[in-house]
Amino acid sequence: MEKQNDETFKIVSLTSEDIRWPTSLQGDGSDAMHTDPDYSCVYVTLKLKNGTKGHGLTFTLGRGTEVVKSAVEAMKHLVIDRNCWEIFHNFGVFWRALTSESQLRWIGPEKGVTHLAVAAIINALWDLWARLEGKPVWQLLVDMEPEVLVSTIDFRYISDVITPEEAINLLKQNSATKTERQNDLLKNGYPAYTTQVGWMGYSDEKIKGLCKDYLLKAYTSFKLKVGRDFESDVRRCKIVRESIGWENQLMIDANQIWDVNQAIEWVIRLAEYKPLWIEEPTSPDDILGHAAISKALEPFNIGVATGEMCANRIMFKQFLQSGAMQFCQIDSARIGGINEILSVYLMAKKLNVKVCPHAGGVGLCEMVQHLQMWDYVSLSATKSGRMIEYVDQQHDQFEYPVEIKNACYMPPRHPGYSTELKQSAINEYKFPNGSWWVANAGTTKPVA
Amino acid sequence: MEKQNDETFKIVSLTSEDIRWPTSLQGDGSDAMHTDPDYSCVYVTLKLKNGTKGHGLTFTLGRGTEVVKSAVEAMKHLVIDRNCWEIFHNFGVFWRALTSESQLRWIGPEKGVTHLAVAAIINALWDLWARLEGKPVWQLLVDMEPEVLVSTIDFRYISDVITPEEAINLLKQNSATKTERQNDLLKNGYPAYTTQVGWMGYSDEKIKGLCKDYLLKAYTSFKLKVGRDFESDVRRCKIVRESIGWENQLMIDANQIWDVNQAIEWVIRLAEYKPLWIEEPTSPDDILGHAAISKALEPFNIGVATGEMCANRIMFKQFLQSGAMQFCQIDSARIGGINEILSVYLMAKKLNVKVCPHAGGVGLCEMVQHLQMWDYVSLSATKSGRMIEYVDQQHDQFEYPVEIKNACYMPPRHPGYSTELKQSAINEYKFPNGSWWVANAGTTKPVA
Repeated sequence: MEKQNDETFKIVSLTSEDIRWPTSLQGDGSDAMHTDPDYSCVYVTLKLKNGTKGHGLTFTLGRGTEVVKSAVEAMKHLVIDRNCWEIFHNFGVFWRALTSESQLRWIGPEKGVTHLAVAAIINALWDLWARLEGKPVWQLLVDMEPEVLVSTIDFRYISDVITPEEAINLLKQNSATKTERQNDLLKNGYPAYTTQVGWMGYSDEKIKGLCKDYLLKAYTSFKLKVGRDFESDVRRCKIVRESIGWENQLMIDANQIWDVNQAIEWVIRLAEYKPLWIEEPTSPDDILGHAAISKALEPFNIGVATGEMCANRIMFKQFLQSGAMQFCQIDSARIGGINEILSVYLMAKKLNVKVCPHAGGVGLCEMVQHLQMWDYVSLSATKSGRMIEYVDQQHDQFEYPVEIKNACYMPPRHPGYSTELKQSAINEYKFPNGSWWVANAGTTKPVA
Repeated sequence: MEKQNDETFKIVSLTSEDIRWPTSLQGDGSDAMHTDPDYSCVYVTLKLKNGTKGHGLTFTLGRGTEVVKSAVEAMKHLVIDRNCWEIFHNFGVFWRALTSESQLRWIGPEKGVTHLAVAAIINALWDLWARLEGKPVWQLLVDMEPEVLVSTIDFRYISDVITPEEAINLLKQNSATKTERQNDLLKNGYPAYTTQVGWMGYSDEKIKGLCKDYLLKAYTSFKLKVGRDFESDVRRCKIVRESIGWENQLMIDANQIWDVNQAIEWVIRLAEYKPLWIEEPTSPDDILGHAAISKALEPFNIGVATGEMCANRIMFKQFLQSGAMQFCQIDSARIGGINEILSVYLMAKKLNVKVCPHAGGVGLCEMVQHLQMWDYVSLSATKSGRMIEYVDQQHDQFEYPVEIKNACYMPPRHPGYSTELKQSAINEYKFPNGSWWVANAGTTKPVA
């Protein structure tokens, strides 16, 4: 019997859970715009009739997680009772059906809450697919014929920059040397950088201590949050440069705090600390603004990095087209899952922009490593100037946490997308009825 | 006692309701992308301690309305217990607090579900404000000192195109002749165009009949949905042109169905029917795409119109900056309410682009007329080449429906934003427990 007609591969349930960790209590993850994040996620579990499960999630910051969960529930009717192979074999078509549902698309389209919900569902489907194939997602992607991989992508609205035929050709370009890179990856892993040293809420002493720790762990690239006030930015840049020296890399991140002209002035005044990039200098929607900032900072050899809050492939397309980003920071949970992220990698390759993924949060490191590793083996064929963000948070909550060795991500070996949470974590942090929230009801700060 | 310290002006409740009309049963409102809309809204009611109420809404298409409602509920804590005058006197600051809540902004920011929720709340606040002042919103805006009006706007991310000082100057430019235009408005109203003749789901006969009807009603501009298949577009354009002649205006609307190059080719092939504009030729997020289409269609004298699904002022800024729209179609329920829409009008004025608002749906005509009338009296000071979309749907559901005379919107006279629904309409169409939905449970088509 064809798998597509085999009843046991029918998706019989989709559950979504609102899970929140009280990270705001420590100031972890704080930046100029997000002063008190409670790292959270909407966690989706799909179950086949034969019992196989797939897990996916999208990252949130606490309040509002219930809104995204409600969007997942609104899409449930598009998934339930479908044979999963029928989905995988027509994945581009399914992806469009999910993102273009004739009534739901009005409240997006393809952005914000509904697209986060799509990401959670799509990530769960890829986890399921990889488990069924007995491979980690990066390997599933690497082993896929270019034509099959490209068939998972919806090229609507990006065909003026890339066509399926071009995408297939890009994937074939370096295929002869794939094994070489795969072996390198298994041996050496993929370079990480750390954001752990410079959260906005951290004291100078804590920053100093963390720089030392991460140097000892072999890190060579360090990211610092900036943008709240200029004097403190200078002080913090100085502390990091004194700690890491000039042979290592410093990146700075403003988390959208500035207007365009203010960004240009502020960053030029920090240029003496030689940051490799300024990340999110202004609104994630301002393509032309980022292009202006990029142009103004070029003489100072400072690149612009953005993407973690870029809404979809259409926005990425324009950032890439217009020289508005020198570092493309795809996020594994904001745009509509792997299918759409693959299209961004392909456009970045064609337009010659380096992809340095956003990670951290909940499960972002776990997921995005798969994609960047596939890119190295199958598409860009180089690690040069590329690295994956690393933050040491919430990994212990997962069944298959990332493994870092010598400041490198080591390729996951377990089948799936590394997205499965421990049942104990769910029991503890499920909101509002998990054991932590029940025990601490009323002791945490009020909702705003 | 100062009003800001007067307890009776405290907002003591905010309720939100999910209301859906089964419009998909008739094919009203259908287009190339939205094949079966059930016109719906999230309806917000604010109540002061003194009993005064304000009503606001955001338009949706059926499924997903509950998601937007959940976002409204997530913002409740920012509104409840606030003195409304404290909000109105620092409206720009309040608006930013609502749109930049440190945890909620992650699931936007300022786009999709959360921004629709903001619109519903902000619209209710303006309705409340205008009622307290005993004026319709357009009059409230017209009578406002430029400095006060500008203080309601958050200029974050748009200061590279317009500053508060420039905005004040633009508002002062034509203030000497305001009374003249106000009198003209009261006498003659503001021109409307009709979209009623050409929904995608309508038969050729129905289109012909409607063209005749609307000509008799003195309409001179007619909009037709296109984009599903080329042959039928040609046939429908021909029918409308034969019915309305060449002395009247035809506009065509593709509702985002095409990719960039496809849009250019398709519209050039329809150029012989001399449409004034092509509306929404491609993704509402594709600024550079719209700029390319605008450039390609310029030789054919066809403008590009878009904006009804433009996410926020930052996106509008770029469309206006880059020549990507020749007709700016603000929507009164998608971007974050009046405060943000005012900033779009100001940028359009500065960059010399005509504003022709999107309307129809539920309550969009009722609301947007106020804004366009204010623009005429206080800002653009001209009706030339401008008009407001008009669709004859759902008006009877409102307490103060639009009044059309000689194909013109007549200025509303009742205090407020014309947003109050009849209680009978709420009782009938509240979802899923309104009397219509209970009586027809199971008789309508399934959820997808």
